Amino acid sequence: MFKAKVLIKRRKTILDPQGKAVEIGAKHLGLRNIKNTRIDKYIEFNVHTDNKKAAEDEVNDYCKKLLANPIMEDYEFTLEEV
Amino acid sequence: MFKAKVLIKRRKTILDPQGKAVEIGAKHLGLRNIKNTRIDKYIEFNVHTDNKKAAEDEVNDYCKKLLANPIMEDYEFTLEEV
Repeated sequence: MFKAKVLIKRRKTILDPQGKAVEIGAKHLGLRNIKNTRIDKYIEFNVHTDNKKAAEDEVNDYCKKLLANPIMEDYEFTLEEV
Repeated sequence: MFKAKVLIKRRKTILDPQGKAVEIGAKHLGLRNIKNTRIDKYIEFNVHTDNKKAAEDEVNDYCKKLLANPIMEDYEFTLEEV
């Protein structure tokens, strides 16, 4: 079995409205040194197979078809045998 | 200036409905080896100060007051001078 850790990030050129919103909140709380907040997704799951290549293919499929939006986001992942 | 990388995770005992939902989608796509999907938040921002202790305090404040829900989530972060 493998544990997959996936990071899905919006492309740098695409605005992150959620990040902008919490940053306005930060200013109101007096946290004036915080800039350029970006909120992205971190996803963990298990892949129940002992074949690393098969696990990688399945993670790529999962990311491309469900987890990430290919128009706006990039993903990267690591697999760790457990 | 410091770059902060924050990971905010729901506690293990708390259900993640979003993760459950995409996992049902995975089953429909034929990805049958994927289990226990958890979707969490990964947040990056800059802290404009040269004092590491002040930067840490500001990140802790930001997490506790805005980014994380202290009832359901735990956070961890790293600071890297840039």
